[in-house]
Amino acid sequence: MTETEINRRVLLVAYADGIPESANFELSSAPVPVPGDGSFLVRNRYLSVDPAQRGYASAVANYAAPVPLGGVMRGFALGEVVASKNADYAVGEIVVGAFGWQDYAVSDGGDVLFRVAPGIKRLSAALGVLGLSGVTAYFGLLEIGQPRAGETVVVSTAAGSVGSAVGQIAKIQGCRAVGLTGGGAKVDLCTGTFGYDAAIDYKAGNLDNALGAACPDGVDVYFDNTGGAISDTVLGHLNIGGRIVVCGTAATASWDPPPTGPRIERQILVRRARMQGLLIFDYKDRFAEAQVQLAAWLADGRLTGREEILDGIEAAPGAIRRLYDGRNMGKLIIRLQSGPGSG
Amino acid sequence: MTETEINRRVLLVAYADGIPESANFELSSAPVPVPGDGSFLVRNRYLSVDPAQRGYASAVANYAAPVPLGGVMRGFALGEVVASKNADYAVGEIVVGAFGWQDYAVSDGGDVLFRVAPGIKRLSAALGVLGLSGVTAYFGLLEIGQPRAGETVVVSTAAGSVGSAVGQIAKIQGCRAVGLTGGGAKVDLCTGTFGYDAAIDYKAGNLDNALGAACPDGVDVYFDNTGGAISDTVLGHLNIGGRIVVCGTAATASWDPPPTGPRIERQILVRRARMQGLLIFDYKDRFAEAQVQLAAWLADGRLTGREEILDGIEAAPGAIRRLYDGRNMGKLIIRLQSGPGSG
Repeated sequence: MTETEINRRVLLVAYADGIPESANFELSSAPVPVPGDGSFLVRNRYLSVDPAQRGYASAVANYAAPVPLGGVMRGFALGEVVASKNADYAVGEIVVGAFGWQDYAVSDGGDVLFRVAPGIKRLSAALGVLGLSGVTAYFGLLEIGQPRAGETVVVSTAAGSVGSAVGQIAKIQGCRAVGLTGGGAKVDLCTGTFGYDAAIDYKAGNLDNALGAACPDGVDVYFDNTGGAISDTVLGHLNIGGRIVVCGTAATASWDPPPTGPRIERQILVRRARMQGLLIFDYKDRFAEAQVQLAAWLADGRLTGREEILDGIEAAPGAIRRLYDGRNMGKLIIRLQSGPGSG
Repeated sequence: MTETEINRRVLLVAYADGIPESANFELSSAPVPVPGDGSFLVRNRYLSVDPAQRGYASAVANYAAPVPLGGVMRGFALGEVVASKNADYAVGEIVVGAFGWQDYAVSDGGDVLFRVAPGIKRLSAALGVLGLSGVTAYFGLLEIGQPRAGETVVVSTAAGSVGSAVGQIAKIQGCRAVGLTGGGAKVDLCTGTFGYDAAIDYKAGNLDNALGAACPDGVDVYFDNTGGAISDTVLGHLNIGGRIVVCGTAATASWDPPPTGPRIERQILVRRARMQGLLIFDYKDRFAEAQVQLAAWLADGRLTGREEILDGIEAAPGAIRRLYDGRNMGKLIIRLQSGPGSG
């Protein structure tokens, strides 16, 4: 099969109250599983680290049921089909799916999100700008946000893997793109690498004034990855008919019980705003449509993605925390092995 | 001209902190105005009493600028063109518009909302189920709520002029209609006169349990006229893909500063809900389309409207309060004079 004949797995051993830490997980080895009829074996090359995993590691039901204690941590991964008893998946194919935080997974195809097109230069991009992050940005902005040329689009976690794609797609649509992010280095990343017209360090204080200055014509679309006080402030700048894409709630550590904040129904009413939640898996049947467009933009240089790659499965347990402490600078990925297209 | 040769007017003399009371207004007489070239004179027959007037009488800017102190109270009215120097408006036409709380108004047509079709049996219905209330229910439910047959539609202030139309239109669409209202008499009105499948007295306690019982398949559309704690409770029953039509915020007395409540962004996200504000004047160009349909439903008995009519302009100053204390049972209207079609 390959040089690794054991399956290293990250098990969830304790539920997290807030953000999962290393101590919530344990590394454990098991034999490499053998696919039965109709199944195939995937050898993971990259593990994805995603905010949704906070929910998977929480005892409180969320989008999905919590991972059972002692079970392999749920997560997306990119891997290669290395053995197959399923006619739809051939050995050598690269697939992205919910294969979990482990070296090997057996799949019957039901947990595959998409196949990675042959010829992709940087495989890890299939977990970032060409993967769920890019697709989330694409459908969230275009289908829910519905920006028109000349409008102003504000993005929170603007330098993140989803946010940076939103900002760039907004520019491609002819919009003014304004990013909210934490710290000077990320502000520079936004205006430099990702081409935002303006970026605001929300930690610098007086976000309200800064937004007013950066959005002289108000805000038409707010792509919201944070919720909380940042979003309350943006709402005050929303134009009549403005749209809010609710993609994430990173600003709130725990929803049990929900924290309180200023009621927003009057703002929604008076501004005739539309606020809508996005779960990208609702668009699963249309991923290919987005990926073709994203790949074209990537090829002609109008879109770029950044990945921050940590080496080795040992880095996984502490990685979710990095999404929340403001350290990471791009789509966070764990590299399990080197090989063609890695890097 | 007519027997009344003075123009009695309700002037706003003091801004209201919360709900406007009689003391915020003063009755005053003036000569009947004379229309100049391009204008016409309307003699009001019915004055409309609307929640939006709370905003007009507040010093805090809202949808519209506050009424200047000493000015005629802004409000909708139904009246007859009694003199005209405008070729588009003939003497004898019945019009609904922002003519203010007074006997007579001069208009150049810009403040006319719509003309009342000749032959309408009960003129006052043109301020209720065939007027702004019905049109608000129609566009809010059908365009924003987008109910599908078999879905469950919950309506707050379910026995009110807008809410009762929403419930009936939901039934016409093949939906289950569940009304939230205050007190047993209004519950009976909902299930009896307006045909709701179920109605809940939110004052009776344990709204959460009652909603669960009345909506065994969850809530697909919530037509919200109240906001506040009632809406927080409904949100907990919203199905994935549910829609919230934000039409009014009657539950909150003052928005300066906004009261706090549980943050809703996580609910919006996890349920992939869509929450959208409605201001009916955005649909002004399409009123006729709704009115034709509403009149047809009224004619074939599938839709009914209730008006509560107070006699005489002296009743106007204390009338807004009635919208908020739960006393009124139908579209609240002030009758200025009797005449053909009155009653």
